[in-house]
Amino acid sequence: MREVKVELGGRSYQIQIGSELLDSIGRQCKKLSLGRRCMVITDSNVGPLYGEKVGASLSAAGFESVQVTVRAGEQTKSWRTAAYCHDQLAAHRMERGSFIVALGGGVIGDLAGFVAATYLRGVAFVQVPTTLLAQVDSSVGGKTGINLTSGKNLVGAFYQPRHVFCDLSTLDSLPDRELRSGLSEVVKYGIIYDDVFFRRLEKLMPALVGRQSKALGEIVARCCAIKADVVGQDETETGLRAILNFGHTIGHALEAVTHYKKYLHGEAISIGQVAAARLSCLQAGLTSAEARSMETLLEKAGLPVHLTLKKQQVESLIQAMSLDKKVSDGVVKFVLASRLGQVQWGCKVPMEQVREVLYQLV
Amino acid sequence: MREVKVELGGRSYQIQIGSELLDSIGRQCKKLSLGRRCMVITDSNVGPLYGEKVGASLSAAGFESVQVTVRAGEQTKSWRTAAYCHDQLAAHRMERGSFIVALGGGVIGDLAGFVAATYLRGVAFVQVPTTLLAQVDSSVGGKTGINLTSGKNLVGAFYQPRHVFCDLSTLDSLPDRELRSGLSEVVKYGIIYDDVFFRRLEKLMPALVGRQSKALGEIVARCCAIKADVVGQDETETGLRAILNFGHTIGHALEAVTHYKKYLHGEAISIGQVAAARLSCLQAGLTSAEARSMETLLEKAGLPVHLTLKKQQVESLIQAMSLDKKVSDGVVKFVLASRLGQVQWGCKVPMEQVREVLYQLV
Repeated sequence: MREVKVELGGRSYQIQIGSELLDSIGRQCKKLSLGRRCMVITDSNVGPLYGEKVGASLSAAGFESVQVTVRAGEQTKSWRTAAYCHDQLAAHRMERGSFIVALGGGVIGDLAGFVAATYLRGVAFVQVPTTLLAQVDSSVGGKTGINLTSGKNLVGAFYQPRHVFCDLSTLDSLPDRELRSGLSEVVKYGIIYDDVFFRRLEKLMPALVGRQSKALGEIVARCCAIKADVVGQDETETGLRAILNFGHTIGHALEAVTHYKKYLHGEAISIGQVAAARLSCLQAGLTSAEARSMETLLEKAGLPVHLTLKKQQVESLIQAMSLDKKVSDGVVKFVLASRLGQVQWGCKVPMEQVREVLYQLV
Repeated sequence: MREVKVELGGRSYQIQIGSELLDSIGRQCKKLSLGRRCMVITDSNVGPLYGEKVGASLSAAGFESVQVTVRAGEQTKSWRTAAYCHDQLAAHRMERGSFIVALGGGVIGDLAGFVAATYLRGVAFVQVPTTLLAQVDSSVGGKTGINLTSGKNLVGAFYQPRHVFCDLSTLDSLPDRELRSGLSEVVKYGIIYDDVFFRRLEKLMPALVGRQSKALGEIVARCCAIKADVVGQDETETGLRAILNFGHTIGHALEAVTHYKKYLHGEAISIGQVAAARLSCLQAGLTSAEARSMETLLEKAGLPVHLTLKKQQVESLIQAMSLDKKVSDGVVKFVLASRLGQVQWGCKVPMEQVREVLYQLV
């Protein structure tokens, strides 16, 4: 088992990465001085697979747990579902000392984290991410939130979990497409922070796509360590943390414009990274050879690197980008790479150039 | 004009108390390094009275403001209205640097504060409380929230405003009953923290009920100073801050059980304080003479000190109390006074004694 610490003063916590961790959740929670009662929030995909195991581990350790299962899918990150979870918490008389266990992918982590942040003005929660994407990205760092009709993650809170359990065994049940989606964020960490890791990924990619658990353990731990390092320096995204958004300005807009149906998050981010790499060549001094390595590695991960949209959709995409949180006073800002392993944030890019690059990708 | 500072490190802020402050809101906001755009959230009672003035002050100072008016009343503290405000913020393209102005009573402050805490994971907000209750209590200290069907304030966040404007002139438009409701919390500050202030209130009460602005200015400032002192020591209610809940365990339950219709908040808290005073005599060494002074002062403020409920309703009240946030592991905890000006929190009271005292008040 590997451990990574997120250093945030009184809100610091450990991320554990290993196989068969679900059985140890109860035991580990015992060490966190949490209350006796908890609610496991999970979804209709993950609940049937792991809900019983997690519940058993909690009760073996003396916790009294209740499971709430919500519908799987991005549409679950809504006011409606958050309010349902709040009502369930109240109905089960959960108290300030009670805690929440988020068991599932990024949607569940974001939703359950937001519910924890806002129930009784904040109760403790632990993350049990069961997708690669959630393990390397959304479960770490305390971003929680839900979507509005007008945009993804427009409502939320910065609220740190008390512990993160990355059980690699849960990835066995992950569909191939979901696994590849997670690899998109993995590649991102190499691009934004660590060229050595990027080169290592070039070697490991076949093993990762082949689900070799040793390789997966290594890269999940490295991604968590990078994210912990960034978040430890800038918890609430006043500066540095923005680098984690590489590929996300276009990626988020792409998801919105296709109604979260055509692309998985990582797939949209893959295309977004290719676009950001090309903009980086135009604006930030990235060499075209480096941009090509990025594109190649994403392709090796089985991720889309082209836009398959009609002209009308590309125009909607450009419009959607102007609603992104990274907009300030009407100017679209990007995270761009100056070289492999190093990026700058807040780069203002003329919309014309964005349009040009997007049409290159069609 | 009086000023009180809430000391919370990087999240410190000023409370200004004075007449005709609305005109200076824009000028004052200029000093807070806020963004250029803002949304004024107000309700159907207050908006028509002061919305234009606040808007004009903001635009004279170079801010671009939009006003959103929600229905007046406790039922507005809901997911539904919070989601409406979020949608409006998104529709008007409010950004991370934008801010919210909460213009109204406690409902608006709690709602708009919660919306500010959660939109884009937190945007700045200022409080412009227009009721006595909001000026002396809810606008200060960063408690924000909404209600669930199963209970008041069950969802929320600790989120501090950047500034509080207590304009005493806005109290002119406050109905008498609302003014008296505010006086309930005023009396509370004397009971929990300051016997000299309590004795001063005994003298000033006729002037306060008569709306003399010098007297009002004095007591609003003192209440804010006490609250600032308490919140500065315990922002998130891990201990001391609980003393502010004197009278609230029963008061909240009383509001819930009468569906927020029969009693105004301060009226329910008045009855709750009388009950808490009697429990204090039984459990905490308060003399019956002191308990009587408390009751007398609340009566002088024109507040109810008896329960006018049927037996069935009293039983529902007792049941409702077990859902209160101050419950832990099934035991009901009270804030009780050991003497005038000094209280203890976390006092466990047997439910039988609560029942006995409640029936005394019928």
